[in-house]
Amino acid sequence: MSHSATAHLPGWAANTLFSRQHQPADTVVALGDIRIGGGRPVIIAGPCSVESEAQILETAHLLRTHGAQMLRGGAFKPRTSPYSFQGLGQKGLELLAMARSASGLPVVTEVMDTADVGLVAEYADVLQIGSRNMQNFPLLKAVGRLRKPVLLKRGMAATLEEFLMSAEYILAEGNFQVILCERGIRTFSDYARNTLDLNIVPAVRRISHLPIIVDPSHGTGHRELVTPMSLAALACGAQGLIIETHPRPDTALSDAGQTISIEHFAQLMEQINHFVAWQQHYADITDPT
Amino acid sequence: MSHSATAHLPGWAANTLFSRQHQPADTVVALGDIRIGGGRPVIIAGPCSVESEAQILETAHLLRTHGAQMLRGGAFKPRTSPYSFQGLGQKGLELLAMARSASGLPVVTEVMDTADVGLVAEYADVLQIGSRNMQNFPLLKAVGRLRKPVLLKRGMAATLEEFLMSAEYILAEGNFQVILCERGIRTFSDYARNTLDLNIVPAVRRISHLPIIVDPSHGTGHRELVTPMSLAALACGAQGLIIETHPRPDTALSDAGQTISIEHFAQLMEQINHFVAWQQHYADITDPT
Amino acid sequence: MSHSATAHLPGWAANTLFSRQHQPADTVVALGDIRIGGGRPVIIAGPCSVESEAQILETAHLLRTHGAQMLRGGAFKPRTSPYSFQGLGQKGLELLAMARSASGLPVVTEVMDTADVGLVAEYADVLQIGSRNMQNFPLLKAVGRLRKPVLLKRGMAATLEEFLMSAEYILAEGNFQVILCERGIRTFSDYARNTLDLNIVPAVRRISHLPIIVDPSHGTGHRELVTPMSLAALACGAQGLIIETHPRPDTALSDAGQTISIEHFAQLMEQINHFVAWQQHYADITDPT
Amino acid sequence: MSHSATAHLPGWAANTLFSRQHQPADTVVALGDIRIGGGRPVIIAGPCSVESEAQILETAHLLRTHGAQMLRGGAFKPRTSPYSFQGLGQKGLELLAMARSASGLPVVTEVMDTADVGLVAEYADVLQIGSRNMQNFPLLKAVGRLRKPVLLKRGMAATLEEFLMSAEYILAEGNFQVILCERGIRTFSDYARNTLDLNIVPAVRRISHLPIIVDPSHGTGHRELVTPMSLAALACGAQGLIIETHPRPDTALSDAGQTISIEHFAQLMEQINHFVAWQQHYADITDPT
Repeated sequence: MSHSATAHLPGWAANTLFSRQHQPADTVVALGDIRIGGGRPVIIAGPCSVESEAQILETAHLLRTHGAQMLRGGAFKPRTSPYSFQGLGQKGLELLAMARSASGLPVVTEVMDTADVGLVAEYADVLQIGSRNMQNFPLLKAVGRLRKPVLLKRGMAATLEEFLMSAEYILAEGNFQVILCERGIRTFSDYARNTLDLNIVPAVRRISHLPIIVDPSHGTGHRELVTPMSLAALACGAQGLIIETHPRPDTALSDAGQTISIEHFAQLMEQINHFVAWQQHYADITDPT
Repeated sequence: MSHSATAHLPGWAANTLFSRQHQPADTVVALGDIRIGGGRPVIIAGPCSVESEAQILETAHLLRTHGAQMLRGGAFKPRTSPYSFQGLGQKGLELLAMARSASGLPVVTEVMDTADVGLVAEYADVLQIGSRNMQNFPLLKAVGRLRKPVLLKRGMAATLEEFLMSAEYILAEGNFQVILCERGIRTFSDYARNTLDLNIVPAVRRISHLPIIVDPSHGTGHRELVTPMSLAALACGAQGLIIETHPRPDTALSDAGQTISIEHFAQLMEQINHFVAWQQHYADITDPT
Repeated sequence: MSHSATAHLPGWAANTLFSRQHQPADTVVALGDIRIGGGRPVIIAGPCSVESEAQILETAHLLRTHGAQMLRGGAFKPRTSPYSFQGLGQKGLELLAMARSASGLPVVTEVMDTADVGLVAEYADVLQIGSRNMQNFPLLKAVGRLRKPVLLKRGMAATLEEFLMSAEYILAEGNFQVILCERGIRTFSDYARNTLDLNIVPAVRRISHLPIIVDPSHGTGHRELVTPMSLAALACGAQGLIIETHPRPDTALSDAGQTISIEHFAQLMEQINHFVAWQQHYADITDPT
Repeated sequence: MSHSATAHLPGWAANTLFSRQHQPADTVVALGDIRIGGGRPVIIAGPCSVESEAQILETAHLLRTHGAQMLRGGAFKPRTSPYSFQGLGQKGLELLAMARSASGLPVVTEVMDTADVGLVAEYADVLQIGSRNMQNFPLLKAVGRLRKPVLLKRGMAATLEEFLMSAEYILAEGNFQVILCERGIRTFSDYARNTLDLNIVPAVRRISHLPIIVDPSHGTGHRELVTPMSLAALACGAQGLIIETHPRPDTALSDAGQTISIEHFAQLMEQINHFVAWQQHYADITDPT
């Protein structure tokens, strides 16, 4: 994909740090051997919530076996109702760190409050800003002052401009390790939990040098749609996927309906590996250099 | 309006503090002589942002003259771009307090971060949670621990359930002084900044005892629509209005297009006063007691 | 309401027949004594579907008693499923004509196909173009060639421009008797069947000379919301209402949940009459002439 | 993809002709050698509007050379404004037939009115029902009485149920040759003309035996997004694509911004061919039989 045509950037992208005008080459966020935005797509998987030591250790081990490169899991959970399970908090962070030690997988987890940024940063390799906080500007500034990667999820009703301008809040504080994530928007459409807006993947890649990944779990809300939409995301240029996975999905404390099993994940990884090999082969045979 | 029929509450409202099942009678939030939710609608007005001592003092004085009962003004401003005017911060709070002393009008202003709750609570009579933070759950819990009224604005893509469940976060911490605010939702419709969803006013009043007011400024984005939509809001049961007003709207540092002048506000108040007198008269002649 | 400021018309309204630039004064659609767009709001009521002679005659009689000025009723019904009741067709038209003779109320009914325009025009006083056909351009042209009033309902996802441009199709064929109707748009919001977009009422009245009425039945989908939203519609400038009413709403063959009873309608008319008297009084005391 | 699990069909799909309960095996619509829904995806291409003999003949010839299997082109054009180019009508149909003779490509073109169904059916190999007419039920019934394939485009605000129920109108009249088409829905999102809802592709394929194709031209509104979204559509299971193509896109009388050039189409076909070969290879190596 050539991105030379920065002449056609939208007006609001002028003089921004996220734009290809500012930096023509793709940003690559590196975590040890893993490079997000540079080369093969990164696969992040794990449960919606960290529930117990056994659950997260088993999950991390199995995911690693099947080819996941990073572990996701929520310790602080944003829930519609105050009476729903709110996550294990600091204990959840400790369990994630334990799972990282055991599996070698870097860990991504959500931070919801400026007061917790320091704590979460002690444990996480990547800090996630969730959809509900995409325009929590004090929180964006706080993670912008860190020197750790940030995964910024698009808000449920965020325009492309708002999404990239929220990234700009982080960049403007000096933190350039920002990974964008499309996770579905809220529309009239009711057969899926959200409407996965894959159009935004190639649109972002034209305008911005930041990597963008896709969350097919929240983006669909249904297990059966996770595999086809994962492949669709990669086909239109997504540089990674973040997928809710659980050893026993039906017992998950949150998001059970959209969480896939380890066996399902293993099959998905097989398809992804074949697909990525094809993409790479195609890129090689068509590369004029 | 009779609200006895709690039999038809939606399932998600069961066992909640916001529901009329829990409390059949309307909640009344009192601020000195002002009673929000009990009797005549309350009119809150003021600039989008506090800009200077002269601006806020002049505005407060003129608004009081024309019948506003509370003063709004932003000190901490959530802005899409990090390079837009972000508000005067603590200095803005001090100016609001000065305007309150000079005018006698209680002050409502937004808080965006848990770290600022204590500071804002020192100055504000009512703390506003803005649309972008409607599901900032740590912030909801923090204002829930105060014993000051909270104005909770509906999120741009929030369902009725999500809106009321966010109020529940505040109530569940022990703060029952919650005022709800409809301010327009985000839809495909493009001729107005937002789509003012007035249906939610009678829907909320059936399900919940909490007062609900309407913001016709953000709800339309156009000065010309503020007067008709203010009257529409009151006609369907809104218990107050919050209106962006500025002595010289075209010079406002934010939201100029939807901000009305003092003269416009004075004319609107005249219509509101006539309308409210009619509502009261109609309620009197139809009241069977 | 002064509409002199045609300088601020949107670009797409230039050189259109619907715009106030073309015709500054309000269009008044006259049906005998009834004047839509000129003076007091017109109240149209009746069942979703014409079901039987007894039903439509009883309804027309009762509605007239309680002050309705026109009768609505569907003979050709657009239904999502081919297996739902599709209306009585020509028989329904005949029953409507019978009800008109018995009650003196003019009749509005939907036409769905160019092939039926002649037939429907024989019976109806006003031909309705439903939401699903707002951009059925051959149908718009066909009713444009009539010299009978047309009620054009806004499409579920129609922008303001698309709505007025569909009216333009009718005007361009020489039929200037067009009545616009807001009936709710489709959004993410799920507690109501549709989101009633009242913002469009004052927006249309600024741009266009055509009358606009509101359908609070489809616009909410819930009986309990019909009264407050009827008043809200009138408060922001709607020039009429169209309300689904049935002697025994729970037995209605279509749209039962949003259909009000005759008793409910009678109470609503009382409130409307008081409200309209206030509006007229207010207009009189503020009219500078 | 196995579709045995009809136990999980939504309730509204019960007793329908479109459901896999009624017919477990995929419907294949055959046009000579072309089989839509059975095997490799079908690629339909051509201009938004038929403009002239030279334009459509040149286009058909070039498209065939580069591998398109069917020719699209509008003779009757639904346009927002009555003053926009409305298509060449019958003359356009004649030119399409001429292009078919010259190129051998079957032709798909839109029909907008029941009165034109017979005429369009004389010329077209596949009749298209456009988005604006997805719920034009008389038109659906009219094409249901034909024995020619119908391409049914999803309405801009149509739910999955409404989309499939519109197909049911055609099936219920005895015409089983229905091809569904996702072409983007209308949402708040404004950087693209529509939001391409690819989630619906695997959702439809689970519930229904009807083939579904994708329109990445209307689904994005931007040339630059056509290639990535074409690949994404195929990756999630689309059984074909319909792509606006023009020898000189910038001179196109309609939809210029989303129309790709022949060169662009040729490159896209190369990618599609590689991709489809991979899909086939992957299906072969994983097929247990």
